[in-house]
Amino acid sequence: MADPRFFTAAGPFTLARLAELSGASLSAGADPGALFRDVAPLDRAGADEVGFLDNRRYVDAFASSKAGACLVQPGLAGRAPAGMALLLCDDPYRAYARVAQAFHPVPAFAPGIASGAVVDSSATIGEGTRVESNAVVGARAEIGRRCLIGPNAVIGEGVVLGDDCVIGANATVSHALIGSKVMIYPGARIGQDGFGFSMGPQGHLKVPQLGRVIIGDDVEVGANSTIDRGAGPDTVIGPGCRIDNLVQIGHNVQLGRGVVVVAQVGISGSTKIGDFAALGGQAGITGHLRIGAGAKVAAQSGVMRDVEAGQTVVGSPAAPAKEHWRMIAALNKLGKRDDR
Amino acid sequence: MADPRFFTAAGPFTLARLAELSGASLSAGADPGALFRDVAPLDRAGADEVGFLDNRRYVDAFASSKAGACLVQPGLAGRAPAGMALLLCDDPYRAYARVAQAFHPVPAFAPGIASGAVVDSSATIGEGTRVESNAVVGARAEIGRRCLIGPNAVIGEGVVLGDDCVIGANATVSHALIGSKVMIYPGARIGQDGFGFSMGPQGHLKVPQLGRVIIGDDVEVGANSTIDRGAGPDTVIGPGCRIDNLVQIGHNVQLGRGVVVVAQVGISGSTKIGDFAALGGQAGITGHLRIGAGAKVAAQSGVMRDVEAGQTVVGSPAAPAKEHWRMIAALNKLGKRDDR
Amino acid sequence: MADPRFFTAAGPFTLARLAELSGASLSAGADPGALFRDVAPLDRAGADEVGFLDNRRYVDAFASSKAGACLVQPGLAGRAPAGMALLLCDDPYRAYARVAQAFHPVPAFAPGIASGAVVDSSATIGEGTRVESNAVVGARAEIGRRCLIGPNAVIGEGVVLGDDCVIGANATVSHALIGSKVMIYPGARIGQDGFGFSMGPQGHLKVPQLGRVIIGDDVEVGANSTIDRGAGPDTVIGPGCRIDNLVQIGHNVQLGRGVVVVAQVGISGSTKIGDFAALGGQAGITGHLRIGAGAKVAAQSGVMRDVEAGQTVVGSPAAPAKEHWRMIAALNKLGKRDDR
Repeated sequence: MADPRFFTAAGPFTLARLAELSGASLSAGADPGALFRDVAPLDRAGADEVGFLDNRRYVDAFASSKAGACLVQPGLAGRAPAGMALLLCDDPYRAYARVAQAFHPVPAFAPGIASGAVVDSSATIGEGTRVESNAVVGARAEIGRRCLIGPNAVIGEGVVLGDDCVIGANATVSHALIGSKVMIYPGARIGQDGFGFSMGPQGHLKVPQLGRVIIGDDVEVGANSTIDRGAGPDTVIGPGCRIDNLVQIGHNVQLGRGVVVVAQVGISGSTKIGDFAALGGQAGITGHLRIGAGAKVAAQSGVMRDVEAGQTVVGSPAAPAKEHWRMIAALNKLGKRDDR
Repeated sequence: MADPRFFTAAGPFTLARLAELSGASLSAGADPGALFRDVAPLDRAGADEVGFLDNRRYVDAFASSKAGACLVQPGLAGRAPAGMALLLCDDPYRAYARVAQAFHPVPAFAPGIASGAVVDSSATIGEGTRVESNAVVGARAEIGRRCLIGPNAVIGEGVVLGDDCVIGANATVSHALIGSKVMIYPGARIGQDGFGFSMGPQGHLKVPQLGRVIIGDDVEVGANSTIDRGAGPDTVIGPGCRIDNLVQIGHNVQLGRGVVVVAQVGISGSTKIGDFAALGGQAGITGHLRIGAGAKVAAQSGVMRDVEAGQTVVGSPAAPAKEHWRMIAALNKLGKRDDR
Repeated sequence: MADPRFFTAAGPFTLARLAELSGASLSAGADPGALFRDVAPLDRAGADEVGFLDNRRYVDAFASSKAGACLVQPGLAGRAPAGMALLLCDDPYRAYARVAQAFHPVPAFAPGIASGAVVDSSATIGEGTRVESNAVVGARAEIGRRCLIGPNAVIGEGVVLGDDCVIGANATVSHALIGSKVMIYPGARIGQDGFGFSMGPQGHLKVPQLGRVIIGDDVEVGANSTIDRGAGPDTVIGPGCRIDNLVQIGHNVQLGRGVVVVAQVGISGSTKIGDFAALGGQAGITGHLRIGAGAKVAAQSGVMRDVEAGQTVVGSPAAPAKEHWRMIAALNKLGKRDDR
């Protein structure tokens, strides 16, 4: 069960209610009135807990699980241990998200300005918003309703935040217009100057960075990630994007809707990424490129050319996936053939 | 026009004044007395705004721009739209920096210690310096004149800062002697212990890190970058260096003058980088190496050997550029030839 | 000598005492009663200072050093300059650690709650612990004895910390149970939500992250590193681990005892790393893998398959070291042979 020191708990819920919440159907013989207390990993779940199976690696854990119920695709139902109630669904992970959200609603917080927080008198703070201890909100900032500004976070002058945003502890935001339902994780840096200067042996001359960061609704920016503001154009993060930890996004970059950026990716200045593209961990994208909608960039790839919509590229320099894996296979053969 | 919520504005300036500021010459027929209000990107600039063209990718945007004036090299003047005044110069980006600085001078700030800041009584704070809300300045720290210590920043005991420095919000500096005109971006970490321990199966034994971080004048350190202090020798960042976001610089590293380090680069302990060398994004340099003056390391390269002055290396393991690209070409052929 | 602005100093110590502290034996003719004032790098050490030689690269610096004494392996004693006292030992780096710790003990601090710190009334703070200026400690947190909570650090609700821990300036810790003698460096992020959501074109749906971060005794977590809490299982960092700066550790990852993780490494979710494995800088490990005890992953490698205990892997995709270097050699030949 989730540690009550850290997580609120709702429930219990009946199996019928969990099926309704998740859009799953019950397996034959499952008792719709049975009560469940929480979700839990398959290898630790007990009789009053609900697990999920989403990755075939864990079929054995499923087959030997003591969970009272499990979200699972119909095709794997045959592997269930005797007596386990099944919540059958096409996308067990998504269904699990719904169930887990029900058991563990986001904790409420008391609106207001906490001890030690410094809010400029010209800033506006929406109804239901809490500014935590020692946070700083600058002049003319406009914070929406029901936002949570974490301890020691800093919101710069003029920043605009929509409703229902969470700004993590020690995060900083400046020069930014941010939508609603946006989560900025602890230590993320939004809106600082981009890496703009004119190089020269007589010294590098700073180029004023005069754009902003525009973030759409329902975006998450991971811990210690950095998003520089635009140099003249804006840096734009489209609605629904998910950005992991320690990601670097350079000035003028534009992400479309729902782009997924895994940890430690770097995107150089002025590159544009299409809707629902996905960038694997530690990938690097050079500047001024176009990555098409739905494109996939494998982890650690180095992308130096435009990528077409829907294409998957791998490697550094990145090549279409099939080509890359043929090169790797050829290289493997060479390595084995070579008998120095 | 730059968003007035975030940027101060000077101007307007006459075309003649802009030419003088940037060292450009006016194209034939341009009206020296015409007034300009701001800089702007070519695709958004209006009749009273000045653009620049520095990258051939954007020639089409130049040719169709509504900008009243543009900084451009003489060789591209022929592509200008009718009626656009041209500010002809060899280095339009550098010229743009001058013009943009004139339109948007660094905002003034009110000297003093803001609400919630904690400054140790033994610290000295120079004339004209501001310590923002909830920043902490430790014992015996010496802060120069006209510095701006951002909200929630932490300056450790004994740290010395020159004049005209900016320490970003939530940045931390310890065990460091820092020159003048240095900008440390939000969340950067300067001066913590390096990764020094004696490995062993009986446990890893900490080795005290007894050096400092020495930073020259006119240096920028990007957001969330980390510079460890020396282990015994100092970690040294030469004057004029530009360090981007999320860069790791290990203990005892020495950067010469004007070194450019792009985002997410890692430099291992005790490596020395020569003047005006440039390291591309996500490159990694192993420890105890010498990278010569003016050397270039391509993005994502993994450098395991010394690099001569002026040399360009690419790849992981890094090889001279020509050699690397021949290997890539050969590999591409192999991938295509292999018809498994 | 270590800069007294930043480092406490004990000593002087006699050569005999230093031999005892470090487990070294004195070379013939060395005066056991000679007094030494500090440690110092070989190229800067004076007659009353002790150096060490651990890396053959620096034999020349040893041979020309003015250090009064040096920790060195017996096999290199012959290269010592005349008059230098030698402290002969098998592991000079480990011996140096002991000597340096003696000269520079960890500075004492005054227990208590500093100005501007906000400690929730339901939190418990152990005897001898100091909470620095503007730090924030949440409800029901339990902080052990003799801990140092740095300025502007944030300890979340319910977090448990053992004894003798140091939480760096501006670090944040939430949803975590932490052992004793743990050092969290400035800006590290422990316990935030992992990158968990169900992807879909209709929007990415957040999956509640219901696990914790469990950190064993004697662990170090570097500056600006990020360790996400578990999704359901916990994220576990075993005792004695050393994690460098800017490292990303995903949800559910488990590190065994004494694992060494160099800067900018990324470990994806649910991967398990065995005791005393070592991961080189910028390496990336995909999710759900097993890396065996004592395995070594070279810098910048991309590990996509399980690694056996004791194995060394290199490259992206990572291969056993021998195989990798044969591929590189073959590729080098190709690059040279190819005469396009």
